[in-house]
Amino acid sequence: MTTLEARPRPVREGPSGRLRPRIDPHLPERLAASADAHAGLGHGPVDVGRWMSDRTAAHDYRVRKIPFADLDGWDFDGTTGNLGHHTGKFFTVEGLRARWDGVTGAVWHQPIIHQPEVGILGILAREIDGVLHFLMQSKMEPGNPNLVQLSPTVQATRSNYTRVHQGAPVRYLEYFVDQGRGTVIADVLQSEHGAWFFHKRNRNMIIEIPADEEVEVGEDFCWLTLGQLHGLLREDFMLNMDARTVLSCMPEPAPGSPDGPNDFARAVAASRDPDAGALRPTAELMSWFTDQRSRCTLEVNRVPLYDIPGWSRGEAEIRREDGRFFRVVAVAVEAASREVTGWSQPLFEPYGEGVSAFIVQEFEGVLHVLVHARAEGGFRDSVELGPTVQCVPWNHGSETAPPFLDRIPQGPDASIRYEARHSEEGGRFLDATARYLIVEADGSTPEELPSGYAWMTVGQLGELVRHGHYLNVQARTLLACLNSIR
Amino acid sequence: MTTLEARPRPVREGPSGRLRPRIDPHLPERLAASADAHAGLGHGPVDVGRWMSDRTAAHDYRVRKIPFADLDGWDFDGTTGNLGHHTGKFFTVEGLRARWDGVTGAVWHQPIIHQPEVGILGILAREIDGVLHFLMQSKMEPGNPNLVQLSPTVQATRSNYTRVHQGAPVRYLEYFVDQGRGTVIADVLQSEHGAWFFHKRNRNMIIEIPADEEVEVGEDFCWLTLGQLHGLLREDFMLNMDARTVLSCMPEPAPGSPDGPNDFARAVAASRDPDAGALRPTAELMSWFTDQRSRCTLEVNRVPLYDIPGWSRGEAEIRREDGRFFRVVAVAVEAASREVTGWSQPLFEPYGEGVSAFIVQEFEGVLHVLVHARAEGGFRDSVELGPTVQCVPWNHGSETAPPFLDRIPQGPDASIRYEARHSEEGGRFLDATARYLIVEADGSTPEELPSGYAWMTVGQLGELVRHGHYLNVQARTLLACLNSIR
Repeated sequence: MTTLEARPRPVREGPSGRLRPRIDPHLPERLAASADAHAGLGHGPVDVGRWMSDRTAAHDYRVRKIPFADLDGWDFDGTTGNLGHHTGKFFTVEGLRARWDGVTGAVWHQPIIHQPEVGILGILAREIDGVLHFLMQSKMEPGNPNLVQLSPTVQATRSNYTRVHQGAPVRYLEYFVDQGRGTVIADVLQSEHGAWFFHKRNRNMIIEIPADEEVEVGEDFCWLTLGQLHGLLREDFMLNMDARTVLSCMPEPAPGSPDGPNDFARAVAASRDPDAGALRPTAELMSWFTDQRSRCTLEVNRVPLYDIPGWSRGEAEIRREDGRFFRVVAVAVEAASREVTGWSQPLFEPYGEGVSAFIVQEFEGVLHVLVHARAEGGFRDSVELGPTVQCVPWNHGSETAPPFLDRIPQGPDASIRYEARHSEEGGRFLDATARYLIVEADGSTPEELPSGYAWMTVGQLGELVRHGHYLNVQARTLLACLNSIR
Repeated sequence: MTTLEARPRPVREGPSGRLRPRIDPHLPERLAASADAHAGLGHGPVDVGRWMSDRTAAHDYRVRKIPFADLDGWDFDGTTGNLGHHTGKFFTVEGLRARWDGVTGAVWHQPIIHQPEVGILGILAREIDGVLHFLMQSKMEPGNPNLVQLSPTVQATRSNYTRVHQGAPVRYLEYFVDQGRGTVIADVLQSEHGAWFFHKRNRNMIIEIPADEEVEVGEDFCWLTLGQLHGLLREDFMLNMDARTVLSCMPEPAPGSPDGPNDFARAVAASRDPDAGALRPTAELMSWFTDQRSRCTLEVNRVPLYDIPGWSRGEAEIRREDGRFFRVVAVAVEAASREVTGWSQPLFEPYGEGVSAFIVQEFEGVLHVLVHARAEGGFRDSVELGPTVQCVPWNHGSETAPPFLDRIPQGPDASIRYEARHSEEGGRFLDATARYLIVEADGSTPEELPSGYAWMTVGQLGELVRHGHYLNVQARTLLACLNSIR
């Protein structure tokens, strides 16, 4: 640790200061040191799982479904049927009409969440004893199957931090809204679930403050190393979606030991190397993606919720008449630790557990990831790259099953290199859980791919995630999982 | 040239081929050789200006303003008042309502061009005698002040190439729509004028075909080196907007001789170097940009054209009642060389000539460019980086003049490092001309900047233009101008 301490640090200076390197040259090594620090540093909790249980027990959360009529502050608009809060803040549940232009002209309708404001998902970083630590929060969200998960330091919509709640101010927010309070490690606008959100996106931020800056650590917060976070990413329902997407935007640590813990870790590390050969040069992949985006003819319009065919509204749910995909429900939340003591809100509740999986395969010794250019109705820019497989199998009969679903093992299998269950945004979705998997295929030559699929190296994916609207939120979770392997 | 010939070339192989380098390592040198070839290669016309005059004379173009009632195939919709083509193709002129949320709540209305399809702006590249050449077209567009300018090889909307015109097929289009016909040098979706287009963007493509592939060169086409194109960029009204934006997406050539032709050329070259120190590290600049985009509260909606306050429709123009900014007019075109023999169409005609200027300044020996994060009503993503100054001075009294306009010399001045007049998209805008300038400021320390402005190195700008929606079309023209200096 002391050798790290001795290194020159990037100096924090105002815009009128002297020139600085365009990229902090020491960051990859500093991230690597944090990634290699797995436990026992004595700064975070000794056992994070136990600490999380303690935090959960310390509050008495209850979430129960209620009829829409019992929602407090939420009403269906008399004209549009949209479900919104009387303040006009938070979000509204509206209708979406989507239509494929061209030959089929297929049309679908669905409820969608409209929340035009940009939120902040921010993780605070700081060196402790010369090793980067990240400030994480144990946070209750009513839609999480286990209610409390680890979230970023700050997870705030504009409604949160302009305090429409009239609740307590958001802790640590100042580091993310006041430019120059720290050094930027990452700050990029990324999309959220295009199937359920209309044009939603959030700032994914990682801000480092100087080691000598005193930070009071609230009882629901703790400092963890990158190695600890990587370990927690392998556990079910531990890191919430916001934590996972911010982690996916973390710059790459310097490579670990070339011996690596195992063959697969070595293959992932080699695939991150910018000099690793790829099946397709980056310019050609960018062109393929541009082509996919240009060809997309999905026309999307927000429409009044009362007006969407095939859906019906009952006392306590809005559902498709054929009972597929998801329903809109209402819950009442009683909790002590959130910004306000209790509230009620609508949530989207999918039927069935999802599968989000990357199929990976080595070609000439270089690991490649199979991505899928997906159109989702709520994407701001028509198409983003998703996992190889992203679906809820329950929704599909054998005839409509998406490509490659049959390659994903349903139980333990030697080809599974990563598996954990995670849940999606617990502030909007109820029990929206998925198996996240990385599955290694064998075979020495790439097969003919269906349209919209491409093989990329891990490094090529890593270049894209520096910018918004390339990787969807499920692919970002899987990239974070890949990056946890070293 | 023979040494170039001897180098290994990237091999064109299908996706099932062997691994290839992620970036063509020879491209920068090959582009540099083309950039250093200014004339006399004996493959293009000896004098491009004369060739352009000949091409202009070879066709008999006439463009005249007509009343809207004389438009052929275009009508105002009875309900919305929108001006569109009876086929539903090409584009429509609709209304836009824009509102700043928050304190001021200021609202404006204007006509806007709606053309949801993605067009292709493509330049074909090929080595001739070992030097990269680019296939350019002399093309008439009714809104160009001199009618005929140099355009990319292909400039096609989807209406063009699906042949709604019922005209001739678009030449060379197959190289840009059939994946794998060539090697991709660039392919990125970029925005167009956010002041006049709603969410419009085009694919900016450069595709290289093998040196031994025979290409028939039509009489309106010619092969030019990058050096010739750089020279033409310094002339007035020679390269059309589409050519300029595609050139801005060209990867950087390898640096020229370290002596350079002059101090400024050396400073630009040094500022492209990824290792050049910057006032702000790239991560911090990205964060500043993300912040600018996140804070933008401009709400934009398309509305019926008949419904926009402050504008009135006459027989032959739609104009603001106060006579400012621009008007919508109609023209009849008679020409022999376009896809069809004659047509009529609406055009947007601004009042007064614009100014688009980068102010550049050296800090500790590293040249920086002052960019402005601009919100424009038609941007798909709220804010993009524009020139330091982008306005039509005629629209502004001294009280409303934008920042830094007073730093732009109105006549010859020693601080001017680049100046030429260019016109904007001549297929949509009538005589929309602007002075494009690069002006070098002195002073050794950066002054306090107004909100929304930032200094970046040329290399930092070059990283951003690889992705869409960072640089607006005026800033891309100026970046192409900066890149022509070596």
